[in-house]
Amino acid sequence: MTRRRQIYEGKAKILYEGPEPGTIIQYFKDDATAFNAQKKGTINGKGVINNRISEYVFTRLSHIGIPTHFIRRLNMREQLVRQVEIVPIEVIVRNVAAGSICKRLGLEEGVALPHTLIEYCYKDDALGDPLVGEEHIACFNWASQEEMQDISSMAIRVNDFLCGMFAAINIRLIDFKLEFGRLYDGDFSRIILADEISPDGCRLWDMTTNEKLDKDRFRRDLGGEEEAYQEVARRLGLLGNEDNSPGEVFDLSAHRGKLRGTKPKK
Amino acid sequence: MTRRRQIYEGKAKILYEGPEPGTIIQYFKDDATAFNAQKKGTINGKGVINNRISEYVFTRLSHIGIPTHFIRRLNMREQLVRQVEIVPIEVIVRNVAAGSICKRLGLEEGVALPHTLIEYCYKDDALGDPLVGEEHIACFNWASQEEMQDISSMAIRVNDFLCGMFAAINIRLIDFKLEFGRLYDGDFSRIILADEISPDGCRLWDMTTNEKLDKDRFRRDLGGEEEAYQEVARRLGLLGNEDNSPGEVFDLSAHRGKLRGTKPKK
Ligand SMILES: Nc1ncnc2c1ncn2[C@@H]1O[C@H](COP(=O)(O)OP(=O)(O)OP(=O)(O)O)[C@@H](O)[C@H]1O
Ligand SMILES: Nc1ncnc2c1ncn2[C@@H]1O[C@H](COP(=O)(O)OP(=O)(O)OP(=O)(O)O)[C@@H](O)[C@H]1O
Ligand SMILES: [Mg+2]
Ligand SMILES: [Mg+2]
Repeated sequence: MTRRRQIYEGKAKILYEGPEPGTIIQYFKDDATAFNAQKKGTINGKGVINNRISEYVFTRLSHIGIPTHFIRRLNMREQLVRQVEIVPIEVIVRNVAAGSICKRLGLEEGVALPHTLIEYCYKDDALGDPLVGEEHIACFNWASQEEMQDISSMAIRVNDFLCGMFAAINIRLIDFKLEFGRLYDGDFSRIILADEISPDGCRLWDMTTNEKLDKDRFRRDLGGEEEAYQEVARRLGLLGNEDNSPGEVFDLSAHRGKLRGTKPKK
Repeated sequence: MTRRRQIYEGKAKILYEGPEPGTIIQYFKDDATAFNAQKKGTINGKGVINNRISEYVFTRLSHIGIPTHFIRRLNMREQLVRQVEIVPIEVIVRNVAAGSICKRLGLEEGVALPHTLIEYCYKDDALGDPLVGEEHIACFNWASQEEMQDISSMAIRVNDFLCGMFAAINIRLIDFKLEFGRLYDGDFSRIILADEISPDGCRLWDMTTNEKLDKDRFRRDLGGEEEAYQEVARRLGLLGNEDNSPGEVFDLSAHRGKLRGTKPKK
């Protein structure tokens, strides 16, 4: 790695200045946090897999016309992206009740919502990323009405695409988190998809066994988190047979039987 | 009081069957609760004052074309209202940051919001009336889009009216809570304003001294809650010179100096 200016170190990624103005490099770490960073750990090889999965997903989303920050993957842990002004809203798309919404609204985990629900949280770690409504976003001008229109319609399209993509590999997309940013062109800006899409920010359940293939394994001390991330990458066809093959990082042996979702659980 | 069927006993009111189908009687108690009923007490004479203030406000709101459940006051503690199907949403209208929103979004109490903010909470005591967005209301079908249109535009009109009304008596309307209900006419229903509007569900600050004239005196153990409620009624011209005068209940002597908001605080 050459010397270059670090812009930001987050919980899961480091941002560096990119080679050209308006670009940055996302470096994917193995660090994992949960419950607003109260729980910390590492998931071996996670950064490599998330970099690869996010590349895969963002590339395919651009093919259906969703504008994203992704430019190209640089190496195992890095990708070049367009720098944006992040909209300070985490967009959570939920198909099935799981996680925080269950306690908040008294729902049973695993029950399909009446229809897809988009929730918004104000990105502020000190406040614990509190849930807000479009009312708050408008009141505090965190995003304009037009931006929220773009964001919500893109979120729905991303959900449709991802539901299809994961269904094809026998995975149920329970929920996921998106971040959007403003790409400036002079005085004008448009909204594009930013950050990452990976098992860090999705709930992914094997359709046959309901086994969790995402960061909930870490959050809930279920074990096998490395193998879960690898399993998602494997089903997407992202393991092994490539130039940038991550090689020995992907060893499925330990939890293989446990995480292969082909045998129905009785 | 004649014998009649009790429909519901809440924290602040009792509902009885009314004399005609489709009507109910709201009986206003002196009971006060706070923090989702973790704190309990009584405020002497509160029921009498709230009954009177709510009558006054609902009557005047109907004059500007806001449909309400109010029919007429029956006596000191009771009013006759139209029975509705309550929409399970508490509508909170905020002009100035105070109470729960301060901690939630890191705002300083007393700072004016960029513009009026309408918040929604799902009415469910067991869940602690959690904050929700229009997203949740649509997803779980707690109210239709058209109903939410009516509710939000009525809430804004009520806010404008109340801001004016309180300004005229040197009171700043910080925030308040509304409930709406469905009035059925065959298969059709329309949204009308229900429940009550009183210092129980409003934050009212003296414009000159910033003294609190509402339930926060009880919530925060500030003392003088009875006198605060009386002071609001007095400024609205609702004390003393009427048939249904509540008489000795209204004794301002103890906190009079403290709560009369005429001398600016230095
Ligand atoms: N294209 C982009 N341009 C600028 N910033 C970006 C871009 N994509 C993502 N980011 C931001 O980079 C950071 C990624 O780091 P990481 O995911 O580790 O952050 P984090 O610890 O989750 O913190 P945060 O709470 O801000 O998301 C996030 O703050 C994210 O909003
Ligand atoms: N016109 C109406 N028809 C039917 N119910 C009504 C009407 N107006 C108000 N209500 C309901 O009557 C009850 C009033 O009682 P009270 O204010 O003591 O309830 P509460 O303890 O605050 O409980 P809640 O959490 O349900 O508001 C509330 O549940 C309110 O929603
Ligand atoms: Mg992040
Ligand atoms: Mg009530």
